[in-house]
Amino acid sequence: MLQNPKTIMHIQDPASQRLTWNKPPKSVLVIKKIRDASLLQPFKELCVYLTEENNMIVYVEKKVLEDPAIANDENFGPVKKKFCTFREDYDDISNQIDFIICLGGDGTLLYASSLFQGSVPPVMAFHLGSLGFLTPFNFENFQSQVTQVIEGNAALVLRSRLKVKVVKEHREKMTVQNGIEENGVVSANLEKEVGKQIMQYQVLNEVVVDRGPSSYLSNVDVFLNGHLITTVQGDGVIVSTPTGSTAYAAAAGASMIHPNVPAIMITPICPHSLSFRPIVVPAGVELKIMLSPDARNTAWVSFDGRKRQEICHGDSISITTSCYPLPSICFRDPVSDWFESLAECLHWNVRKKQNNFAVEEEEF
Amino acid sequence: MLQNPKTIMHIQDPASQRLTWNKPPKSVLVIKKIRDASLLQPFKELCVYLTEENNMIVYVEKKVLEDPAIANDENFGPVKKKFCTFREDYDDISNQIDFIICLGGDGTLLYASSLFQGSVPPVMAFHLGSLGFLTPFNFENFQSQVTQVIEGNAALVLRSRLKVKVVKEHREKMTVQNGIEENGVVSANLEKEVGKQIMQYQVLNEVVVDRGPSSYLSNVDVFLNGHLITTVQGDGVIVSTPTGSTAYAAAAGASMIHPNVPAIMITPICPHSLSFRPIVVPAGVELKIMLSPDARNTAWVSFDGRKRQEICHGDSISITTSCYPLPSICFRDPVSDWFESLAECLHWNVRKKQNNFAVEEEEF
Amino acid sequence: MLQNPKTIMHIQDPASQRLTWNKPPKSVLVIKKIRDASLLQPFKELCVYLTEENNMIVYVEKKVLEDPAIANDENFGPVKKKFCTFREDYDDISNQIDFIICLGGDGTLLYASSLFQGSVPPVMAFHLGSLGFLTPFNFENFQSQVTQVIEGNAALVLRSRLKVKVVKEHREKMTVQNGIEENGVVSANLEKEVGKQIMQYQVLNEVVVDRGPSSYLSNVDVFLNGHLITTVQGDGVIVSTPTGSTAYAAAAGASMIHPNVPAIMITPICPHSLSFRPIVVPAGVELKIMLSPDARNTAWVSFDGRKRQEICHGDSISITTSCYPLPSICFRDPVSDWFESLAECLHWNVRKKQNNFAVEEEEF
Amino acid sequence: MLQNPKTIMHIQDPASQRLTWNKPPKSVLVIKKIRDASLLQPFKELCVYLTEENNMIVYVEKKVLEDPAIANDENFGPVKKKFCTFREDYDDISNQIDFIICLGGDGTLLYASSLFQGSVPPVMAFHLGSLGFLTPFNFENFQSQVTQVIEGNAALVLRSRLKVKVVKEHREKMTVQNGIEENGVVSANLEKEVGKQIMQYQVLNEVVVDRGPSSYLSNVDVFLNGHLITTVQGDGVIVSTPTGSTAYAAAAGASMIHPNVPAIMITPICPHSLSFRPIVVPAGVELKIMLSPDARNTAWVSFDGRKRQEICHGDSISITTSCYPLPSICFRDPVSDWFESLAECLHWNVRKKQNNFAVEEEEF
Repeated sequence: MLQNPKTIMHIQDPASQRLTWNKPPKSVLVIKKIRDASLLQPFKELCVYLTEENNMIVYVEKKVLEDPAIANDENFGPVKKKFCTFREDYDDISNQIDFIICLGGDGTLLYASSLFQGSVPPVMAFHLGSLGFLTPFNFENFQSQVTQVIEGNAALVLRSRLKVKVVKEHREKMTVQNGIEENGVVSANLEKEVGKQIMQYQVLNEVVVDRGPSSYLSNVDVFLNGHLITTVQGDGVIVSTPTGSTAYAAAAGASMIHPNVPAIMITPICPHSLSFRPIVVPAGVELKIMLSPDARNTAWVSFDGRKRQEICHGDSISITTSCYPLPSICFRDPVSDWFESLAECLHWNVRKKQNNFAVEEEEF
Repeated sequence: MLQNPKTIMHIQDPASQRLTWNKPPKSVLVIKKIRDASLLQPFKELCVYLTEENNMIVYVEKKVLEDPAIANDENFGPVKKKFCTFREDYDDISNQIDFIICLGGDGTLLYASSLFQGSVPPVMAFHLGSLGFLTPFNFENFQSQVTQVIEGNAALVLRSRLKVKVVKEHREKMTVQNGIEENGVVSANLEKEVGKQIMQYQVLNEVVVDRGPSSYLSNVDVFLNGHLITTVQGDGVIVSTPTGSTAYAAAAGASMIHPNVPAIMITPICPHSLSFRPIVVPAGVELKIMLSPDARNTAWVSFDGRKRQEICHGDSISITTSCYPLPSICFRDPVSDWFESLAECLHWNVRKKQNNFAVEEEEF
Repeated sequence: MLQNPKTIMHIQDPASQRLTWNKPPKSVLVIKKIRDASLLQPFKELCVYLTEENNMIVYVEKKVLEDPAIANDENFGPVKKKFCTFREDYDDISNQIDFIICLGGDGTLLYASSLFQGSVPPVMAFHLGSLGFLTPFNFENFQSQVTQVIEGNAALVLRSRLKVKVVKEHREKMTVQNGIEENGVVSANLEKEVGKQIMQYQVLNEVVVDRGPSSYLSNVDVFLNGHLITTVQGDGVIVSTPTGSTAYAAAAGASMIHPNVPAIMITPICPHSLSFRPIVVPAGVELKIMLSPDARNTAWVSFDGRKRQEICHGDSISITTSCYPLPSICFRDPVSDWFESLAECLHWNVRKKQNNFAVEEEEF
Repeated sequence: MLQNPKTIMHIQDPASQRLTWNKPPKSVLVIKKIRDASLLQPFKELCVYLTEENNMIVYVEKKVLEDPAIANDENFGPVKKKFCTFREDYDDISNQIDFIICLGGDGTLLYASSLFQGSVPPVMAFHLGSLGFLTPFNFENFQSQVTQVIEGNAALVLRSRLKVKVVKEHREKMTVQNGIEENGVVSANLEKEVGKQIMQYQVLNEVVVDRGPSSYLSNVDVFLNGHLITTVQGDGVIVSTPTGSTAYAAAAGASMIHPNVPAIMITPICPHSLSFRPIVVPAGVELKIMLSPDARNTAWVSFDGRKRQEICHGDSISITTSCYPLPSICFRDPVSDWFESLAECLHWNVRKKQNNFAVEEEEF
């Protein structure tokens, strides 16, 4: 007799993913943390290298060039002239970039991510100070490292992002004035639903819903695929990607998830319930967060720590895994880089070699 | 200019997986927890229903039928005669079963899993008492529920398993006697490697490496894709599937992972280091556990709580995600079933409605 | 030979502490949570019982009597006339009260505590809804229970409080005008330290220092007996009494401490460091919290959830155990009451009887 | 009107406790970890210093002197001759010692503690390798440090110990043979309770009750002052002193308690219940641990990691705070020493200076 649904699983090795260019990258976006003097020299060196040695078109944010230390540097003038510049929220360059280079901390990469609401070009991130989870490259020998990447000689980790849709019910107190006074109806105070306001975000680390400036607890309902799964009473809740599991979620007690795991993490912030452990759900679910009907206070939401805004009764935050991940170029490979960051950034399981807790009976 | 590697991710909804039979199931393995009187009546009713109403071939373990309450039940005799029986570790029935039904607790399903070292037929698990993570069905109306499943009308969750290979170096002290005395070589005490012993297991919940009966700490090295990632000093370490994340790993402090997430969880048991947080790695990695070179004690390993054995210097435990998951039939769907188990089995985020921790300033 | 410093410890049984009145209590302060209609009837019954049956002088807050449901109740008029009334922050009644009765939740007791910056009379707290940590009495049979207490027939737990001194450096930009114009010195803009502002609080649960409305991290230094013991990077830090260990500190992950333990608990809120475990220090230490010199943002402090205020560079928060604990009257005794609250309020170790995590090998 | 029970609390500063000798110490017990070659030279130097420079009587364990490296050292002969020797479990020296010096790790001090079931002389513990919680002194300049202590110039921390009484019901299968055969009664198998076996221990760190060599869960009841407070389902339970809170209890997730806090900590080991948080109870309570009536397996108990034994149905473990604490001599003072150990031994809140988890919006 033959068994009939033969179930076999195929599993991919996370270390196997590599960068491939269809054609050599020509345009490169350079993101530099502003107001950090230590980054000026590396920034200039990098730009010279990209434009003069590699003949690439460099995109730079306008405000980066407005820094007096750059604006007044005469030697840098000729290089600067070749730059394409843009302004956040004004100019959409998302379809003109082949490749991104970041100089700064993890925040630089989060910022780069926010510039691309659709598909994101591969990102190479330098840390310049100490290693970050998102910034694996150090700047020494940057030339050879950049060349390796341009030649397609690099491993890649596709960091999943969350697509977040905030729907705000837009209620306004309005005074509707009736033009015809003689019929006796003069004016009326009406509260009218003037329509919904919809905003959308792509987040790389996490969406945080918390009590904001209020000292009262947030009280929010979490829905999964349309079903209420739990109510959060406490300081708030974090919905994070695996990338975000080593950020705020780790501070709130979550287990840490490798960025190659297709999952979404839900972590309560200081929950009232002793049994409210963080959970990890499959990447394919749809989450929704709303104020609980009996919540007496509003909540606040932020996206990778930015765009903080209030959430009122009736507003909703829908969260799914984005189909636009961020392709992050590895220093070594997705596995080695991650474990090195765990050790460096979080001192994960760093121990004294001696047995601190041990009692060794046999010795006596 | 066109951007060149356009990265788009495709994500599957976990709720969409359903049972499909290529042809109607004919042979059914019924697993019953032994020595539990409360299961006898349901067991008999189920077997009668399967053989007489559905014309199926029922496989039952020999020792189940040796229970006097079954052996001596004359009414049950005619049904029993039609059974195919087998003995664990003697008879391999793994290719003869279309469908498995379990009666008992989560342990029953773990046992069922252990009988299938290759592909596993779909499993329908009844809990009879209170809901378990692995036993979503209650026995009331079992007929209609079984019929639904036989008709292919059911959702499925593919629970990943771990393939574990234990390699034990088999060293023996031997006395090699030389027959010819006159040449001066009489005898020699030799320690000879007489070969490796290799065992293989499929686990559904977890592999546990701990200090066993010893009161001294275990000291084991964990390798990932060939690289040492950390050394565990403490009571031990749990390598679990997402299914196992709600079992022993939860007791040891892990976040809980939905069974649809393709991942492996590594959780220390009472680690000496305050910073040794559990981690979640992609399903595609290869883990290896060995005693640390400087470990002064051996360790012990067990597989879903069974087959406990000692691990000595030189022995190794290799762990990968098995390509043979366990297809577990859902009562409702993979998501609803899981959240219901979290609430029922672990009281996840069960709260008193009042704000226990709250102080409400405005009231005064 | 005689051993010379013979060290023997004397330990008190926490269950042995009992209420003793030097002379029968005459004046009773009744605290009622306002804006809670369900408390009106119990409040009236209690007041009638105290004034008419027990001939006690009842103190009530003025705003409690301004509630229309009380103000307009004619039947209650004669009782009300006998009340002594007072206003928070205006009238100091702290030396006129023998005994306090609270009606409401835990917040009611925290409020009562805040009215007594020095010695606190014994407090009897009714919960009316569901049991709280601070409100052990239910209102049924309140007469016999109040009588028992008045007769001195009750166990007592002395809940330690924290004395908190906030010193704010008061810097102001001032324009100093010189009256004599002819000597040419006209006016000068000076920044002058115009002196310190000192505030003092008695807290029963906790002092919280957090990032307040800011989304940036707080960065505060914690000193113990004058030595810097650690820097908190994260959402903030909670300094709590044992009473407070079951409140916000529990939400932030602290172990729970019985109120009879003379200790102070320091609990980080979402700390960045994986190894930042809560600690418990002896009641006799002096703690001080200040912004770290390199903190880029201010912090916010609150006291039992009230009096929230900003903390800037140079400001300091000094915390010691107050010599004025709150004597809280037990329903049964300090130990039984506490364990009942742990179970009722926090579901501490509430389990399903079945072995959720267990695998029971012998069964197969 | 006078308020009548004026409640004021007096709180002692833990830093104020100091060593005082009634008369200069004459006899010193030197404890040396055996089988550790690195300790030989320091041991000899210390003994020479104590006997020749300070004219003290040195007590040493017999087996320490049996080490060939000591036995065969001719230079050490004259010093050795003056030693008083003793054997563990044979010779009671507890009334002959004024002062203890330990050389080794934390285990050395635990061993020293176990030799004194009654009052313990002050202990000065050298770590020789890296700092331990119980071994604050380093051996460099040991002479001046020992002199300071002999002169009474040292701070002291009284580390509370637990007095543990194990009562084992002693059941035996006996064959009672009747000598007179003719009356027809020949022999009988009787199970007879032959009486209780009572053992008593003083522990400095913790009593651990766990599942021992069994892979099945322990199931034990915990009573406080005669009342059942909870049932532990899991790997076991730790009852520890504050000193023990930084040892095994910390590994099991407990908050860390300064040794000056008069308390007992109860910490579950891998409990099945998500809400089973560790608790801290006052030093004056009496705890009792027994197998739960429905436990299917025995449990195992150990005392500071030693004297491991089985606990069966009917056996009980009673635990109170001992009236014989261990006076531990501080390197600096009780507070500084403890925080230095937290940092050194447990890397408590050791952080990377950069904000790992932070996103800093203002930078863009």
